[in-house]
Amino acid sequence: MSKQFDQVSVVKQANKYFDGKCISYNVLFADGSKKSVGVIFPSSLTFNTGAPEVMEILGGVCKIRLAGASEWTTYGAGQSFSIAANSSFDIETVELLDYVCHFG
Amino acid sequence: MSKQFDQVSVVKQANKYFDGKCISYNVLFADGSKKSVGVIFPSSLTFNTGAPEVMEILGGVCKIRLAGASEWTTYGAGQSFSIAANSSFDIETVELLDYVCHFG
Repeated sequence: MSKQFDQVSVVKQANKYFDGKCISYNVLFADGSKKSVGVIFPSSLTFNTGAPEVMEILGGVCKIRLAGASEWTTYGAGQSFSIAANSSFDIETVELLDYVCHFG
Repeated sequence: MSKQFDQVSVVKQANKYFDGKCISYNVLFADGSKKSVGVIFPSSLTFNTGAPEVMEILGGVCKIRLAGASEWTTYGAGQSFSIAANSSFDIETVELLDYVCHFG
């Protein structure tokens, strides 16, 4: 996996969620698609989706529970999980998590 | 000022400094130059420089004291300050700071 995105635009100002527990930057591609690169500090959070998302974990470990699920699943570096549009997921982290979020 | 950098590469994994008080992402330009986009959480920190840097504040306010200086200077959104190579600066923030660091 490439360590970087090439030939992209990056928005200079960060997105801040949950009082700074999640910081991300938007990355815009020539084909009109969008991803974000971000970190999540140790926390228990619930994220809502608009578009469908694929969360790709680059570093750290998280426990994920998708909307409607009772089970938690653990994901670490190199793993991904998908979230449906207009849904949500619970995430627990105990160390800083690096991720890429793929939209659409 | 443009809200984004265009035709760049962005490194997917964040730089983490000072136990996560500073998070930044490297942005690489076609001419070989490098910048970083980042945030600093409320804190009092000392940064060391290798290459000379220009710190451009996009959001928030900080107090800066350059190496060897006795006075603090306040910088806010739209302002910049320069740091010499192989030097340092103290920075105090009481709210989340958004910045771009220009190297070289």
